[in-house]
Amino acid sequence: MAAQPELEHPRKAFGWAVRDPSGVFSPFNFSRRETGEKDVAFKVLYCGICHSDLHKAKNEWGTSTYPLVPGHEVTGVVTEVGSKVEKFKVGDKVGVGCLVDSCRSCQNCSHNLENYCPQYTLTYDDKYKDGSITYGGYSDSMVADEHFVVRIPDGLPLDAAAPLLCAGITVYSPLRYFALDKPGLHVGVVGLGGLGHMAVKFAKAFGANVTVISTSPYKKEEAIQHLGADSFLISRDQDQMQAAKGTLDGIIDTVSGVHLLLPLIGLLKSHGKLVMLGAPEKPLELPIFPLLCAF
Amino acid sequence: MAAQPELEHPRKAFGWAVRDPSGVFSPFNFSRRETGEKDVAFKVLYCGICHSDLHKAKNEWGTSTYPLVPGHEVTGVVTEVGSKVEKFKVGDKVGVGCLVDSCRSCQNCSHNLENYCPQYTLTYDDKYKDGSITYGGYSDSMVADEHFVVRIPDGLPLDAAAPLLCAGITVYSPLRYFALDKPGLHVGVVGLGGLGHMAVKFAKAFGANVTVISTSPYKKEEAIQHLGADSFLISRDQDQMQAAKGTLDGIIDTVSGVHLLLPLIGLLKSHGKLVMLGAPEKPLELPIFPLLCAF
Repeated sequence: MAAQPELEHPRKAFGWAVRDPSGVFSPFNFSRRETGEKDVAFKVLYCGICHSDLHKAKNEWGTSTYPLVPGHEVTGVVTEVGSKVEKFKVGDKVGVGCLVDSCRSCQNCSHNLENYCPQYTLTYDDKYKDGSITYGGYSDSMVADEHFVVRIPDGLPLDAAAPLLCAGITVYSPLRYFALDKPGLHVGVVGLGGLGHMAVKFAKAFGANVTVISTSPYKKEEAIQHLGADSFLISRDQDQMQAAKGTLDGIIDTVSGVHLLLPLIGLLKSHGKLVMLGAPEKPLELPIFPLLCAF
Repeated sequence: MAAQPELEHPRKAFGWAVRDPSGVFSPFNFSRRETGEKDVAFKVLYCGICHSDLHKAKNEWGTSTYPLVPGHEVTGVVTEVGSKVEKFKVGDKVGVGCLVDSCRSCQNCSHNLENYCPQYTLTYDDKYKDGSITYGGYSDSMVADEHFVVRIPDGLPLDAAAPLLCAGITVYSPLRYFALDKPGLHVGVVGLGGLGHMAVKFAKAFGANVTVISTSPYKKEEAIQHLGADSFLISRDQDQMQAAKGTLDGIIDTVSGVHLLLPLIGLLKSHGKLVMLGAPEKPLELPIFPLLCAF
């Protein structure tokens, strides 16, 4: 039998855990490891709530182990650093995202792509290399190897910074990787939730002309007035979609439910890029025939 | 009523046409236009048979108009050039592919992407701007604007050159566009038909390590001995597929029937590229959930 959570490690910790798929949270006493040589310990001040946390809390992906303390958009202030820590000191503003460890030796790790490491350690509902359970940021403190800790610049409030650690990087990364970060491009953002609103802000910051595509007409005001999008398309309005055909250099699709791809692909210019970030539980339909076919 | 094919234009022509969805070909007398100022007229010597020609012949895409003369991998020798033709002279070896015209003014056309022009004119079963019908290369002669005529180098036999005009460019283009043309990359080719065998040869010529992936064990010899592939995977052999997981930089998928994408995606390295060239009539399933999802 595994050690009791509050006795597993020497450092007392407190969090909010779900105990079963009801999704109901309750107070949870557990423990964190001592600050190792390369570890950064920090007091958690803010933690984003990602939809994945809800899936995990309710075991909707069938992979949850209870008790489970979610939270992978964690920010706070450093309280202790190990003797060999180089990048942080006590008092620094820091954050932790989805990962707290990886193999550190595979090809992906050696290219700073730890998120593709086959042996990464997730920030919660996973196991450290010593076999103890990882608990996330719905808690009062964290300890992590400095390699998986990021610095939050002084000018950036810790509450606003938290969602950058998952939602933010999830949209920032493809905008950069697929070269959709050039001024003057026309970028579409599908879905205006946690990821979508970040995508609009990043794309605008990169200098793009941004079109939000949504099923919800009432989000138009938020998209344009609040987030600075340039235009808004209701995806179910065929006239609007037809008029916008072939106008986008790229689309960041943040919708996590099953949805049609063909209308989105139709919005792209030749060689446009559709980046799908949602993970619907059922496969999407990829209609190739209508896209091709001269002969 | 449209003009009779043999009277539509002044120049007599002969070809093989299908008259109905039976797919049965019979002799067909029709006509070609006079050689215009920018036109190249040539005697057709060879024409590839693309599977699309069969779909078109049998109206399997529902778009065929009869009588229909297929053929869009056409090679031959120039017999006459217009007064303003700059690139060709009588006796040159030439070819025509899928297109014989386009709008010449849209953004795609101005970037040499006439194949994306919304008003392109297909080599057969389409209409020239004057409203007359286009007939393809299953015929004795062709006339086309020099912009849509390509030169065949003297060292390249005209029979071997013909399939380059559709199958060849269809695999060459993505290998180049997606930067799979660098020596030392590991490239997979799915399906060893008209497109696949070309993809193997191009990828080898670019210096890639090439793996053919096929459902047909008997194609191994052709792939390796005849075409020079480095290895061969039977896609239904789960052990082989598992052993090859995460090894490919890119895949050229030439399969035109409905097939599973997840096993192919599994063969890719991180950031690997799956290029799908087939056009299955039914949508493919794009399973995203198993590909993502840390949180």
